[in-house]
Amino acid sequence: MKKILFATTALVATAGMAAADVKISGYGRFGLDYNEANKNVIGRSDTNITSRLRLQFDMSTETDAGVVFNARVRMQSENRDGNPGRSAPGGDNGFNGARFGVSYGGLTVNVGNIIGAIENAPGLYTTTISTGTGIDGMDFHSLPIKGMNGVGWYWDSYDSDGMGANGIEALYTFSGFTGHVSYSRNNGGTVAGEAKGEARTAIMLTYSFSDYYVTAAYQSSENGPTRVINGKTVETTDGITFAAVGADFGQFGAKLAYGDTEEASSWTLEGNMDIGAASNVVLWVNSTDSEVSTDAADGTAYGINYQYDLGGGATLVAGYVDTAANDSQFQAGVYFKF
Amino acid sequence: MKKILFATTALVATAGMAAADVKISGYGRFGLDYNEANKNVIGRSDTNITSRLRLQFDMSTETDAGVVFNARVRMQSENRDGNPGRSAPGGDNGFNGARFGVSYGGLTVNVGNIIGAIENAPGLYTTTISTGTGIDGMDFHSLPIKGMNGVGWYWDSYDSDGMGANGIEALYTFSGFTGHVSYSRNNGGTVAGEAKGEARTAIMLTYSFSDYYVTAAYQSSENGPTRVINGKTVETTDGITFAAVGADFGQFGAKLAYGDTEEASSWTLEGNMDIGAASNVVLWVNSTDSEVSTDAADGTAYGINYQYDLGGGATLVAGYVDTAANDSQFQAGVYFKF
Amino acid sequence: MKKILFATTALVATAGMAAADVKISGYGRFGLDYNEANKNVIGRSDTNITSRLRLQFDMSTETDAGVVFNARVRMQSENRDGNPGRSAPGGDNGFNGARFGVSYGGLTVNVGNIIGAIENAPGLYTTTISTGTGIDGMDFHSLPIKGMNGVGWYWDSYDSDGMGANGIEALYTFSGFTGHVSYSRNNGGTVAGEAKGEARTAIMLTYSFSDYYVTAAYQSSENGPTRVINGKTVETTDGITFAAVGADFGQFGAKLAYGDTEEASSWTLEGNMDIGAASNVVLWVNSTDSEVSTDAADGTAYGINYQYDLGGGATLVAGYVDTAANDSQFQAGVYFKF
Repeated sequence: MKKILFATTALVATAGMAAADVKISGYGRFGLDYNEANKNVIGRSDTNITSRLRLQFDMSTETDAGVVFNARVRMQSENRDGNPGRSAPGGDNGFNGARFGVSYGGLTVNVGNIIGAIENAPGLYTTTISTGTGIDGMDFHSLPIKGMNGVGWYWDSYDSDGMGANGIEALYTFSGFTGHVSYSRNNGGTVAGEAKGEARTAIMLTYSFSDYYVTAAYQSSENGPTRVINGKTVETTDGITFAAVGADFGQFGAKLAYGDTEEASSWTLEGNMDIGAASNVVLWVNSTDSEVSTDAADGTAYGINYQYDLGGGATLVAGYVDTAANDSQFQAGVYFKF
Repeated sequence: MKKILFATTALVATAGMAAADVKISGYGRFGLDYNEANKNVIGRSDTNITSRLRLQFDMSTETDAGVVFNARVRMQSENRDGNPGRSAPGGDNGFNGARFGVSYGGLTVNVGNIIGAIENAPGLYTTTISTGTGIDGMDFHSLPIKGMNGVGWYWDSYDSDGMGANGIEALYTFSGFTGHVSYSRNNGGTVAGEAKGEARTAIMLTYSFSDYYVTAAYQSSENGPTRVINGKTVETTDGITFAAVGADFGQFGAKLAYGDTEEASSWTLEGNMDIGAASNVVLWVNSTDSEVSTDAADGTAYGINYQYDLGGGATLVAGYVDTAANDSQFQAGVYFKF
Repeated sequence: MKKILFATTALVATAGMAAADVKISGYGRFGLDYNEANKNVIGRSDTNITSRLRLQFDMSTETDAGVVFNARVRMQSENRDGNPGRSAPGGDNGFNGARFGVSYGGLTVNVGNIIGAIENAPGLYTTTISTGTGIDGMDFHSLPIKGMNGVGWYWDSYDSDGMGANGIEALYTFSGFTGHVSYSRNNGGTVAGEAKGEARTAIMLTYSFSDYYVTAAYQSSENGPTRVINGKTVETTDGITFAAVGADFGQFGAKLAYGDTEEASSWTLEGNMDIGAASNVVLWVNSTDSEVSTDAADGTAYGINYQYDLGGGATLVAGYVDTAANDSQFQAGVYFKF
């Protein structure tokens, strides 16, 4: 539930000025995390508290012509694997990089900490509160785009805890059609007066009709990080492909999603079902075929997520994952939004 | 005075959802600090500005069954001893670690940046706005739990400026009785798959009757920091004991508090009195008997604190302390809450 | 347009307490920056996104006697020259040092992150939204106080992105007269018990009459940074002089400003004009005579700034600058306040 701070428009606003708003929203979530894979980490228990508090500020204003300008920043105070200083090495938690936006009709242009075209594809994440499994997503084994030993996030995506991609993107929605193009570029090359850092271009197209959607997305990059796979030097962030079909019939939903990178191709099948008035169960299975024999994501992983709506924006969440490396993870806890 | 941001419940809330709240509150305080002990510090004047701005965000929601979930974070911008970057080495001020809570009836369970059972004992701190003497507590010489050369805060306590104890605690209140149990554990040992870091367990019991209260608290620890006292290796954070009796008769109040650690045993006697409609004076004396002959806290310290209510949440504060090492400190300034 | 969070005074306030307020305001700005001078910087493109989100918290309360206490902090999330982590080395964006204030009648005393007497002189900055040229000020070549190779900000000024001057200042306004005295001092010398760090004292006097103002300001310093100019060791922050005369006739405005430092003397002439109902154009020229032959600010620079009010607090901004080193800069984008 979003808070819109009622401005004292009557007291301060000049006649003829439209209203500008500040909204504060966010969520808290906390619970227990059991992760069998921690058996390999020195000084880390297999069972830890996982928690996050997100505080989000959304600012917006509308011009006389109906153009809407907006900006968003977030602060997160997190704790995973017994590390409460996760959000910032300096010891406290700051705000992330801002995203600025302009909207008019069905068109939106964002700059800064952009969403990213691939990241915005429906069906990429799971239809759960954590967008993965359990309280904190549990490493998002359900994602069908695999990078170095699992999920790499080698595509541009909104960064809740850092500066983000510093890019520019355009989104257009018309009838059931959504198009999204994003571009980011880092300075950091070795030539005076030229950026020559990594540049990423991505596109996403989605068509929704009746209870169904179909989507496809692609990212290409220049000057990205490279590594050697089977004797061939490939650019890690180049040539990422994603496609999905999904359906939501109210009580039931399902999707089939496919991702392909230079390292691995991967499928995720997911189904979800409402049970009674307040419960929801999500089941997913991911099958990954990696070019790298030592890839921990190579093989089959599956997960189950259970949610129970407590009312007032609070939800009980429990999740179980069995990874491709046959490590089991379990989380249970509470999520509440404000 | 707390601010509760009026949510635009009417605009955004879905039917059947209970309301969630965000409150912003805090205080500003600033004044002059004279500290004779600065004579020993290179490049530090004996007189400095001391200041703090605290901005606190409290989020809460209530489920249909009447369970309340809440979370708290704080940002502090401080300045002491001519060091305005005190809050963060990186140069700006972030938020602290979040505390998450669940309450139902008289029972509260918190995780994350917990309060701590010893910290929550009545009579531990002074009944002043700073909970110590003067504007910023003046190093809290009034505390009867003494560690390395003074106050050590070797017990779990809510951390306003860092990540905190990352623990779990339960508080139960029934009639005049309050019980509080807290537990925290750090990862960081040398065994794979096991935490083996410092673990602290603490308990506090308080009984309040008529105008009186009596309280006792204890902390034990494992794998805590050690040091050698009189040829014996002791765990600094283990075996901390606190007990107090106090009374508040409206215009007058008093307490006697006792603390014991591996290093020192210590008594604090405190009295406070309202003078007229707006003034309050607190007097305290602390007597510490340390095992370590070079301990600066060994001996007798005393202090006086004067407060004058200016209205509107603003208070004039002045304090004087004479430490066990015979250094005098004086502070005067203003505190205002919002 | 400022937001004043409506406090639930009715619910929480105790009778007889005056109200305390928290206001959240700020702005977002973003656009394209072309800077010819980037041709000399390795790995930096000549064209970049420039952006800033400012989130400001203003707290205030009034005592029964009519004395107002206030505090201000800001958070900024910025991006310039392809560096989104500009605000904080640690990777996220914190709050700056707080400024605390007391006001009664025409007198205001601030401590902490003070405004600074020179910084507060009318005519120092340009009458544009960025207080310089374009979206982000474009390095403020219009400022007539020149330091090391351009603008040095060697005077005390409110720091939006760090801890600030940690000083104390008094401002007094009576009829058209404004006086401002500021003082700051750093600990950091080499003598025990004495600050011996840099200390700055500044004064500003302004007289406004009819549509005109005349102002003068001066800063002296002790223990400041030194450098050698023409074989003479001078204190960089000492002996900064500023003076200006200006006028504002509604549709037209103009100013002439002069600044003198140990390194350079500098003049800025500026004119601005409203065009129609929503447009404003500012033109300025700066002429600097530096003691240092390699000073990039030595010579003549000029700039033009165009603003178009879009309504709703949003403004279209474009600016062009030609620097004394004959590098051209151009920026265009949007600014919106909330």
